[in-house]
Amino acid sequence: MNQIDEMNQINQPSMTSRVRTKARHQIHEFDLIRALHKRHSRQSPSVIQGIGDDAAVITSPAGQWTVLTTDLLTEGIHFDLRTATMADIGFRAAAANLSDIAAMGGSPKHLLVALAIPRTGTSRQIHQLYQGMMDACRPHRVGLIGGDTSGSSSGWFLSLTLIGTASPRKALFRSGARSGDFLYVTGTIGDSLAGLKLSNEQPSRTKTQLRNTAALSTKHRQFLIGRHLRPTARIAEGQWLSAHRLATSAIDISDGLSGDLRHICEESHVGAEIHLSALPLSPACRAYAASRKLDPVNLALSGGEDYELLFTVPSRQRSQLERTALTQGFSFTCIGAIHPLRFGIQALSPHGRRHRLANTSYRHFT
Amino acid sequence: MNQIDEMNQINQPSMTSRVRTKARHQIHEFDLIRALHKRHSRQSPSVIQGIGDDAAVITSPAGQWTVLTTDLLTEGIHFDLRTATMADIGFRAAAANLSDIAAMGGSPKHLLVALAIPRTGTSRQIHQLYQGMMDACRPHRVGLIGGDTSGSSSGWFLSLTLIGTASPRKALFRSGARSGDFLYVTGTIGDSLAGLKLSNEQPSRTKTQLRNTAALSTKHRQFLIGRHLRPTARIAEGQWLSAHRLATSAIDISDGLSGDLRHICEESHVGAEIHLSALPLSPACRAYAASRKLDPVNLALSGGEDYELLFTVPSRQRSQLERTALTQGFSFTCIGAIHPLRFGIQALSPHGRRHRLANTSYRHFT
Repeated sequence: MNQIDEMNQINQPSMTSRVRTKARHQIHEFDLIRALHKRHSRQSPSVIQGIGDDAAVITSPAGQWTVLTTDLLTEGIHFDLRTATMADIGFRAAAANLSDIAAMGGSPKHLLVALAIPRTGTSRQIHQLYQGMMDACRPHRVGLIGGDTSGSSSGWFLSLTLIGTASPRKALFRSGARSGDFLYVTGTIGDSLAGLKLSNEQPSRTKTQLRNTAALSTKHRQFLIGRHLRPTARIAEGQWLSAHRLATSAIDISDGLSGDLRHICEESHVGAEIHLSALPLSPACRAYAASRKLDPVNLALSGGEDYELLFTVPSRQRSQLERTALTQGFSFTCIGAIHPLRFGIQALSPHGRRHRLANTSYRHFT
Repeated sequence: MNQIDEMNQINQPSMTSRVRTKARHQIHEFDLIRALHKRHSRQSPSVIQGIGDDAAVITSPAGQWTVLTTDLLTEGIHFDLRTATMADIGFRAAAANLSDIAAMGGSPKHLLVALAIPRTGTSRQIHQLYQGMMDACRPHRVGLIGGDTSGSSSGWFLSLTLIGTASPRKALFRSGARSGDFLYVTGTIGDSLAGLKLSNEQPSRTKTQLRNTAALSTKHRQFLIGRHLRPTARIAEGQWLSAHRLATSAIDISDGLSGDLRHICEESHVGAEIHLSALPLSPACRAYAASRKLDPVNLALSGGEDYELLFTVPSRQRSQLERTALTQGFSFTCIGAIHPLRFGIQALSPHGRRHRLANTSYRHFT
């Protein structure tokens, strides 16, 4: 661990001296990262030792639980430098981790960054990557406490570990949903997939695409691409649901509603019904779907990475949830209900027809 | 985070649909990892939620500090599949993290694993990788609590985060060394570099190398390669030094003695002198150096990844350290002393000559 060791690690023959480690030119990049880490570390009474020792040392508030999540992003699988800036990639990676903490009802605190830099990587790119990560973290006062950096013989590789706290007996798990609970979602869903599709249209425009582009306002286009590249982790919503014990279970929508609902049902041993006409769709998502002759409901069901929260609320607490959510300015939409396990997972169409909900979360582009 | 999401992540278009995510054949590998994670997770009262939710949730013993370290290994930079098995790579990655916790005087507890698998990766390789990691972790009762898995468009990529505990006011930092302290090291040093060099000799043997090979006994060869591929993290030693408040500072030798000593001097604002004749060298390392006409002292000074502890002891506690170390069966060797900052870092040769100690930790193979 620790950034002090970076420049050594890159030149260290390690198991491989025949694999050329070159990288003398990379040393200044590691110096840059060291400087960036110092800049982005945060003075906090809970950090006993940040960057600069063999390990980071933190304290947890007495009686609090520690919440930990790790996410991995690899170039060519999770991101494409032709459609996203390094700052976008950093922001999104941090948001994905923040969202995991949000889904537990926790408070994010500290970040560890493991980064492998390809030979073609520049100081400017590294700078932007950290800028993006910290742009996502800053509003939540999350500071860097450590990491590891290395060269990469191929593309960029980023692994973040986020550490937070949660209140015992108030943290939100996937496993607490009960038959009779109502199913809610924050914000709007499907936007990120629409934004992804829009990003991917740009480099190779066909005549039809150009016509479609014209059919979508710049405002809608920017909104959707922004939702894809710079998602919002619902930290305040998760903390509020946890603090008031209003949710029996929660998950963040990272794979897509149909898949993530399945996770809640599996972990809680319940079934569920969602009302397709109730899914919260943004005007931009509707406009995009109309211009491309797509069903926006399909975007909402299968599109991952919206990083909205999907959660369940006991019926007796529904009115309290909706009333106080208004005062907090939160956007919560009831999209269905939890049923016994034998019910399975069903969707109610706008025409009143029920059908088994297919898990389209991980299939729509393959 | 969480393994449930893996198979989705690999097929999820994410930012990139044009970058082919293929990987339908990889799904069974993610199923395998899910099974491996379940197998290697550990029932422990300190784990509230392990694998299977948005984030892991743990408790820390009241008043204890939490210690965190992360290490990154990339194929082609940190390891070479021609000279190490997947099990060796897993073992070594875990040992490197365990060693960071050892250097803080901490107790390792929980492991998060982020893994990117190339298209050519097989179930067998994944199985072996986890086997190696857990072989290193098992003696310390470290269990898996989470992770993330992805495809890789190039080589293997492994990032581990290890979480442990340490006693407040007893944890060992790099910054506590004081002028007058004695400088100690555990075990023997230089073995790992000798083992690395031996590993790299094998595939393309010259006549000279064959003659040299013959000059080194199989026992010595196996010892050195074993020290390189399967290093021992000095957890018990670190905990003992911490518990008895015998060390004022500590670091693990991951970059090489000359570089790691420099880290202690920089963080503690002190100088140091090491006695080259006192460096603990194994018979195997001496035999290897003799057969290759190398100076074993240079191997000891520049060779990283021995994962021995380098630590400082106040003079008044020296006799207690040496007396009780014997009863514990620890191998501690005094190799020098700490001096004021202006002294710089010097080496005393066996002939009684002093010279400024060059930092050869990250240069010897470039």
